[in-house]
Amino acid sequence: MRVLAVDPGLTRCGVGVVDGVPGRRLSLVEVGVIRTPAGDPTPKRLVAVEDEMRQWFARHRPEAVAIERVFADTNVSTVMGTAQVTGIVMIMAERLGLPVTLHTPTEVKAAVSGNGRADKAQVTTMVTRLLGLATPPKPADAADALALAICHVWRGGTQSRLEDARLEVLARSGSRGTGIPRRVPPGAAPAQRRLRAASDAVTRQSPGTPTRLPPTSPTRQTPGAQPR
Amino acid sequence: MRVLAVDPGLTRCGVGVVDGVPGRRLSLVEVGVIRTPAGDPTPKRLVAVEDEMRQWFARHRPEAVAIERVFADTNVSTVMGTAQVTGIVMIMAERLGLPVTLHTPTEVKAAVSGNGRADKAQVTTMVTRLLGLATPPKPADAADALALAICHVWRGGTQSRLEDARLEVLARSGSRGTGIPRRVPPGAAPAQRRLRAASDAVTRQSPGTPTRLPPTSPTRQTPGAQPR
Repeated sequence: MRVLAVDPGLTRCGVGVVDGVPGRRLSLVEVGVIRTPAGDPTPKRLVAVEDEMRQWFARHRPEAVAIERVFADTNVSTVMGTAQVTGIVMIMAERLGLPVTLHTPTEVKAAVSGNGRADKAQVTTMVTRLLGLATPPKPADAADALALAICHVWRGGTQSRLEDARLEVLARSGSRGTGIPRRVPPGAAPAQRRLRAASDAVTRQSPGTPTRLPPTSPTRQTPGAQPR
Repeated sequence: MRVLAVDPGLTRCGVGVVDGVPGRRLSLVEVGVIRTPAGDPTPKRLVAVEDEMRQWFARHRPEAVAIERVFADTNVSTVMGTAQVTGIVMIMAERLGLPVTLHTPTEVKAAVSGNGRADKAQVTTMVTRLLGLATPPKPADAADALALAICHVWRGGTQSRLEDARLEVLARSGSRGTGIPRRVPPGAAPAQRRLRAASDAVTRQSPGTPTRLPPTSPTRQTPGAQPR
């Protein structure tokens, strides 16, 4: 399965393309960052992102698209641009008939490192190992997109659909995360520990040999916790 | 000048097209609401909005585009959809070479009614009068888009560019509205009073005869104050 993963943003938008199936070796296809000048008018920036994104889709013909799910943070302008770039990618994927899955930053970090609160360096290290790269992916921002792609290959989107359903309910109730019990799949309680164990296993193996992570890992996203 | 105005939203997106120049009679071209089912996946909904919006642009060939500026409110999911629809309209306008202007809800209400905190009924009443309509525009949501179009015709976008610049500075500083003095054009201090006077003048005239409003009216947007 070829996954095109996007860490959306108007100033910097990470894009990573990875080939892989759960339990087998992952391989990097291309990674990069789409940038637009902060001083340009938003419509011009959005068109530039759309144009460049279209080239990524044409060049790599992905079979699935993963986008990092961003929550509103304190910087309103940033979250608007992020939402707009997310919309661009969603429309492009939908018009190509490709499935789109959102993963939260916590899910991504947990998937690649076993720790939902891993820092950037830890994520980059794991991405480098898992893809069997000689050097860490450059630019650093792009590692996030690759981590997202890896997360998507391993999870296959199942967890995120649960999260989608939960957020849908929250959105309808006008709530942001209180009052509605979080649905945790049976038997998944010590998932964080299991993920960490899986990550340790990966670290012990030769670089580039991914271990299939457990299919469920309930994580809690704190709005505003992600860097952009 | 023909203005296509959009009150962005994923569940309901108001679209209004108005012909007019400042100080002369305004006329309604078309008004409506683009709707997408809340139960559909977001990518599918965005494509539906884009397709229908493209028809509006093709049908009316506007010379300018106005979009209601939305701030993050407590409902994260809603603001994401709103931002995404805003992005769709911006890209469409940019690709057609049309200027895009954002106006805040407060600016729009102040422009048509003289009161930045006017309620929906007051706005609908003023829109009905200003466009010389026999009955209030239907559906009710659509009146907002028409108010936005009227606001744009009268203001010509100047005020909003100031607001753009202010928000740009705030975005760069990572602040949301404190610490940076608000720039008020000289002589615009009692603008609210002048706007109200202008609105009263409109009310006294026969319906459909718009009065040109003062070109400046500093308004303060309270994040989260708008209904969607």
